[in-house]
Amino acid sequence: MRESFHDELDRLSAQLKGMCRLAAEAIRRASRALLSADLELAERVIAADAEIDWARADCETHAQTLLALQAPKAHDLRSILAAIYCADRLERMGDLAAHIAGTVRFTHPHHAVPAELETTFAEMGDAAASMADRLAELITRHCPCGFADLADTDQTIDTRHTRILALITSDQWPHCVQTAANLALLARFYERFGDQAVAVANRLGFADTGELPFHTHT
Amino acid sequence: MRESFHDELDRLSAQLKGMCRLAAEAIRRASRALLSADLELAERVIAADAEIDWARADCETHAQTLLALQAPKAHDLRSILAAIYCADRLERMGDLAAHIAGTVRFTHPHHAVPAELETTFAEMGDAAASMADRLAELITRHCPCGFADLADTDQTIDTRHTRILALITSDQWPHCVQTAANLALLARFYERFGDQAVAVANRLGFADTGELPFHTHT
Repeated sequence: MRESFHDELDRLSAQLKGMCRLAAEAIRRASRALLSADLELAERVIAADAEIDWARADCETHAQTLLALQAPKAHDLRSILAAIYCADRLERMGDLAAHIAGTVRFTHPHHAVPAELETTFAEMGDAAASMADRLAELITRHCPCGFADLADTDQTIDTRHTRILALITSDQWPHCVQTAANLALLARFYERFGDQAVAVANRLGFADTGELPFHTHT
Repeated sequence: MRESFHDELDRLSAQLKGMCRLAAEAIRRASRALLSADLELAERVIAADAEIDWARADCETHAQTLLALQAPKAHDLRSILAAIYCADRLERMGDLAAHIAGTVRFTHPHHAVPAELETTFAEMGDAAASMADRLAELITRHCPCGFADLADTDQTIDTRHTRILALITSDQWPHCVQTAANLALLARFYERFGDQAVAVANRLGFADTGELPFHTHT
């Protein structure tokens, strides 16, 4: 019975890992679509979001079944609750990638990002995708350094988010208001994606230690 | 034992209800601070956010203890899981109110909202606060009509959010880029607040029926 239960916990981790990979793929494609104004790719990101939504529902149903049938305690209980929490955040990461793709669709055939900001957005996109990749590793390896690691990468996104907001609201901003408003939202989508990834890492760490995070800053 | 367990469930509901009231107060004050450029009130909203964060941690710790000690099943299990989910969303609603207050601090002594948009933002603020008030009622009354009810009010916010985005990105926008960027984010904070409230109502409803929502649109 217990062995089968731990197989189930492993299967739950594998489901979460699959969600991390979907989220990484979504943000990577959304960023590519954004930087190349690729409408077809953006549409694919938007359509693929339903897959992450389904994966979240599967993961949560599985976790709930384990809670009902196994009445787990201590570390096992925390792991299952963490899976529910993380699946929800990963679904949200998929939503945010879809929002970025939605902006590509909205601004098409124009580029949403002016040439001089392309590198900054590419860096945010790479950082965001690498955070989702890293989560996929952390979920099965139980690496205790995960939180600090992800928090560092998140800082890369936050710095660029702040820089973009400063740029578009400066007196020297050379583009139109519509571009500025889109960029404010786009930068925020990346910033929120990073925050959610940190929240996932945070929760995975605390599932191991048993202390709830006071505040996950998301 | 079971009677005491149901007392504990009632206490968990009361904790959530308390969080709804804190979130309602936060968004009401943040909106007042926004419309009157009241820095002192904005600072109070930002400082009070820690109280909601603590309330979430208390609620989650309580729920986790009930799961570990009582090994609940079916409706009781769903109610406890819903409490964890809702506490997280309510904390986020507090964060969003604090973000609105943060914009008041950032733009002070200037008004972030131009005179011609004050009514629109006041309507969004009223709708958002009324959603948090309504959640406080739903949590203890188990009213099945809650979701549709909240979804209607959320529509009020979404319509205004769309209208604001259209206005600030139109060719006739008479204000500066900084104002437009701030308004895009402010409108989004209200929109997200409404989305979280709908997600809470949605989850409370599904805790009663036992079917997980496929997608909560948040």
